[in-house]
Amino acid sequence: MTEPHRLAPETDAAPVPPSAALARLRATGPLVHNITNHVVMQTTANALLAIGASPAMIHSADEVEAFAPIAGALVVNIGTLDSAWLAAMKLAVAAAGQAGVPWVLDPVAAGATPYRTDAAAALARRGPAVIRGNASEILVLAGATAAGGKGVDAAHDAAEAAEAADALAAETGAVVAVTGAIDRVTDGRRRARIAGGDSLMGRITGMGCTASALVGAMLGAGLPPFDAATAALAALGAAGEAAARTAAGPGSLAVGLLDALAALDPAALDRLVEAGSA
Amino acid sequence: MTEPHRLAPETDAAPVPPSAALARLRATGPLVHNITNHVVMQTTANALLAIGASPAMIHSADEVEAFAPIAGALVVNIGTLDSAWLAAMKLAVAAAGQAGVPWVLDPVAAGATPYRTDAAAALARRGPAVIRGNASEILVLAGATAAGGKGVDAAHDAAEAAEAADALAAETGAVVAVTGAIDRVTDGRRRARIAGGDSLMGRITGMGCTASALVGAMLGAGLPPFDAATAALAALGAAGEAAARTAAGPGSLAVGLLDALAALDPAALDRLVEAGSA
Amino acid sequence: MTEPHRLAPETDAAPVPPSAALARLRATGPLVHNITNHVVMQTTANALLAIGASPAMIHSADEVEAFAPIAGALVVNIGTLDSAWLAAMKLAVAAAGQAGVPWVLDPVAAGATPYRTDAAAALARRGPAVIRGNASEILVLAGATAAGGKGVDAAHDAAEAAEAADALAAETGAVVAVTGAIDRVTDGRRRARIAGGDSLMGRITGMGCTASALVGAMLGAGLPPFDAATAALAALGAAGEAAARTAAGPGSLAVGLLDALAALDPAALDRLVEAGSA
Repeated sequence: MTEPHRLAPETDAAPVPPSAALARLRATGPLVHNITNHVVMQTTANALLAIGASPAMIHSADEVEAFAPIAGALVVNIGTLDSAWLAAMKLAVAAAGQAGVPWVLDPVAAGATPYRTDAAAALARRGPAVIRGNASEILVLAGATAAGGKGVDAAHDAAEAAEAADALAAETGAVVAVTGAIDRVTDGRRRARIAGGDSLMGRITGMGCTASALVGAMLGAGLPPFDAATAALAALGAAGEAAARTAAGPGSLAVGLLDALAALDPAALDRLVEAGSA
Repeated sequence: MTEPHRLAPETDAAPVPPSAALARLRATGPLVHNITNHVVMQTTANALLAIGASPAMIHSADEVEAFAPIAGALVVNIGTLDSAWLAAMKLAVAAAGQAGVPWVLDPVAAGATPYRTDAAAALARRGPAVIRGNASEILVLAGATAAGGKGVDAAHDAAEAAEAADALAAETGAVVAVTGAIDRVTDGRRRARIAGGDSLMGRITGMGCTASALVGAMLGAGLPPFDAATAALAALGAAGEAAARTAAGPGSLAVGLLDALAALDPAALDRLVEAGSA
Repeated sequence: MTEPHRLAPETDAAPVPPSAALARLRATGPLVHNITNHVVMQTTANALLAIGASPAMIHSADEVEAFAPIAGALVVNIGTLDSAWLAAMKLAVAAAGQAGVPWVLDPVAAGATPYRTDAAAALARRGPAVIRGNASEILVLAGATAAGGKGVDAAHDAAEAAEAADALAAETGAVVAVTGAIDRVTDGRRRARIAGGDSLMGRITGMGCTASALVGAMLGAGLPPFDAATAALAALGAAGEAAARTAAGPGSLAVGLLDALAALDPAALDRLVEAGSA
């Protein structure tokens, strides 16, 4: 239960470009089980529907073990954590792990309180396929800093967290995605940088949570974790860029982002990604 | 407490056309008590306000028994169920039943887990005035299938569920509404089919929950259950149709739907409904 | 723990005009800790981000005492109260009080049930810097009436609650803000009236909660409670007025309101406020 989820040695497989990943997601319509925070449930459910996935928000300890195994992927997000939800998250990730269902950890505001940091670290040790956070959260999780950070904002630049992300990937066996002005994905050996998006996205709540949910959608479509994380961030980056072009502010950006996710041209994703190795 | 809510024999009364039902709702401004899921609370509160009702989202076992009796109707939705909420739902429907307050059951994702199916069935036996679900949910509740279904999506067509709906109506004493491309309402003797809406509505979360909330608003305005369900689905169908005309995608559809609900021309509702009998 | 929060004798200080308050908020980017209701979490987080604050929604008894002291302000909103949340609210306000962090109480639907009224009154005695409610809620809290009211709607006019607001301010040491067609702020000696807004705002859920959240943002920027409440209501009034100019209904008003909060011209705030004394 506490071991990293066994991944196929995806580094030997040819990488799947984001455009192909998006096409696969749309063809698959994966069921994504979310145990996520109260603030973004609607936002992330809508983003999952817009991109072509099928969201289910189910958090009770009475049913998560029955549900997680039938989902294509699980997303665990600690944004509005409490003890009952944390217990259910642990049951769900154990059930997902046993069933071979990949899961994403979003360690929202890790570092803000000891309770939250401990919860994030405990979950990180249970085998997520992908961990997606901002630079502060990843630095805290990697033990590279005890930084507090302001709520869920990114107090650090994603670049600063690159080393921490590699360390966290090595420690947990997870692909680690650090989002910021430029997003970075690493499995400790391969790295990708993803451009796109718009600074106005920082004025809407739940953009990081949406990124994590979209990673879940890509995992649910059967993509290897590294490709799933890269494609999801490219999709959000492309949609954000498109939505920002006509937005009059954060309200219309949030609306336009859902329209853009539904209308994404797969080809727009690939140009945002730059691959590299460690 | 476990008997079906006693309904006036509404089949003897002249049916209320949806246009008149909407006018009555707007004139009444009914208070609708919702114990609903975390994903759609904001969406359904806004839909209730847009159509002219007054929503209250109150879920604590400490106060639902005091509140349900002063509401015009109660809506119980199991989307993000857990044991504390289920206990409060049971208290609320008992208090509503004793006070003669009609209530709607939305058995979200019944069939997805045994816990959820059992909860939905237990509530269905406590006298809802209306049960509103998609075809899968109604089939599960009627015992016509043990189908799992993918989250809250409709895995079956509404037509397939017509027989199950009749059986469920007979078993529970409730009017049963099955929503899909064409919506169907039955009390086991009378039937109505409601057109309208748009396939893009399936790309926004909470449309089914919104339908159930609007049924609550119509019940709260004093309409008999069959007419309430028919009118609510016609209102949502007309608003969805109108909003889809200018929507650029699911984000703008969700926004336009609220605008359209507030601006509904009552006359647009009646043409969507086709009445029939069993 | 149960004493009113010690306030600087702000009546001796020169009042800060709303335009200057908004500028200070934007320059400060305060962290606002919210323990708020499920319906409006997304709405109020987005409003806080739009105006330039940094929201955190954290409700667990396991971490609120650690988090409240590092926030600039705390907002406590009882909209979807239950016993676990109420216990956490009490821990959070105690921790905030000890750390000198000002907090806002939003007594949503006080009067609707005895449980809710008691909870609101218990919190009101624990030293909020500002209490923000509609006329019914303030009348109930002041003990001036036992009115029920319909859910969270304003069943009374703000003018009727003016005396009750003065009494509540005297009793609790809080600045009291009563919102309605015209908003009123009082500390028992000084009074302000704030115009602006639009009647269509009553057709969107969470506008009162948004007002309370924005008061928290102003407090977090270091403004004295009277000036914070006045400036927050002027900001929302100006944004609502601007958004209503182009809205086609409640859906587009909600979107435009976030755009308008982000684009607010500080100068537009001052003209909405009329100062007075008791």
